[in-house]
Amino acid sequence: MNRRTYARIEEYMLSCMKDAAHDKEHVYRVLNNTVRIAQAEKNVNWDVLIAAALLHDISRPEQIADSRVDHAAHGADKAHAFLTSQGFTPEFCDHVRACIRTHRFRKTEQPATLEARILFDADKLDVAGAIGIARTLAYNGETGHPIYTRDEAGVISDGAGDREDTFFREYKFKLEGICEHFLTETGRGLARERHAAAIAYYDALLREVRDDAGHTALQALLDA
Amino acid sequence: MNRRTYARIEEYMLSCMKDAAHDKEHVYRVLNNTVRIAQAEKNVNWDVLIAAALLHDISRPEQIADSRVDHAAHGADKAHAFLTSQGFTPEFCDHVRACIRTHRFRKTEQPATLEARILFDADKLDVAGAIGIARTLAYNGETGHPIYTRDEAGVISDGAGDREDTFFREYKFKLEGICEHFLTETGRGLARERHAAAIAYYDALLREVRDDAGHTALQALLDA
Repeated sequence: MNRRTYARIEEYMLSCMKDAAHDKEHVYRVLNNTVRIAQAEKNVNWDVLIAAALLHDISRPEQIADSRVDHAAHGADKAHAFLTSQGFTPEFCDHVRACIRTHRFRKTEQPATLEARILFDADKLDVAGAIGIARTLAYNGETGHPIYTRDEAGVISDGAGDREDTFFREYKFKLEGICEHFLTETGRGLARERHAAAIAYYDALLREVRDDAGHTALQALLDA
Repeated sequence: MNRRTYARIEEYMLSCMKDAAHDKEHVYRVLNNTVRIAQAEKNVNWDVLIAAALLHDISRPEQIADSRVDHAAHGADKAHAFLTSQGFTPEFCDHVRACIRTHRFRKTEQPATLEARILFDADKLDVAGAIGIARTLAYNGETGHPIYTRDEAGVISDGAGDREDTFFREYKFKLEGICEHFLTETGRGLARERHAAAIAYYDALLREVRDDAGHTALQALLDA
């Protein structure tokens, strides 16, 4: 892809992201991740990959406005329409659409091509490591969910049994096992490298909030 | 303090926190921290300390509703009025008020008594370590601020020169040097123990987002 074509697609992406300004940094991270993963693969269709990475989240604003909208399916069609209007070939537009449609965790439709698998892994890589922790905590704050919750006995839950959307629950159900879900060797390897930072952070946080030396002493004081 | 008095003050705290539900977990962490720090001190007025810890953030909702309100000054008077209405002695009510008034970072008024210094440190301790990182990231998400920003050359800033309220800026200006600000030995010691987790997390995150192997390869592709 030449710089002019890249700039044209990037400009469209930025125009779509105006209501979700921070998400453009996610897009650039995912784009970098796709290139890194793709370097280890043979016969990559680079143009499809770059276009799909740039456009994979263009329907985030639609999903934010209406949670019933699936930004993957919606964004796939939106990207297809944009690329078609720009004179790209039908094969190119179809391939990009398919990549975007399957970039989310899904049981129904799996990434079917090498480029789709790379995009899937590049997007998951932004859920691994310290950046995955940061995005999850920021999203928790944005949606008003707590870091942790307590069971009936007042003990702070590690997240595994939480019914409420806590940060600890997200960690247990999404971040902790993220390395199992990669479709390329390179993606999995990068995720494993980053995962240590996420584990260390979660462990430190759980240890801090569960440290009940003060609580125990307080109970003794109140009973005295 | 007996359990009945504790329950009465706790109940009032919870009634004040109804619009800021997650903040009550901060209150319990600060309360535990005060007890832990106080155990190493002599001649602690435990009743004043426990009441001040429970009530220190009761005006958070007022500050959230109107950012010109200082929750420390407002909460100090509100706590004083409540405790007076409950029949506590004027000396007790005055002492608790003074502790709450000086619990924030302030250049004008310093914590004047042992109990005020302990409360100050106990509150700062919840800004140190992994919990400080979590609270800062969640607050960033809540207020719509980004994790990081870029300079004119497109390089991701480490936070030191940021004009915008980014997570990296908060880290550089508040979290990184937090251990310098403690007023008790025990508080400082606990903060230092926890600080390693915060440094490790920030370093990992900065390394991940600044990793530009993919970006460099992409530039070469676009120039080819």
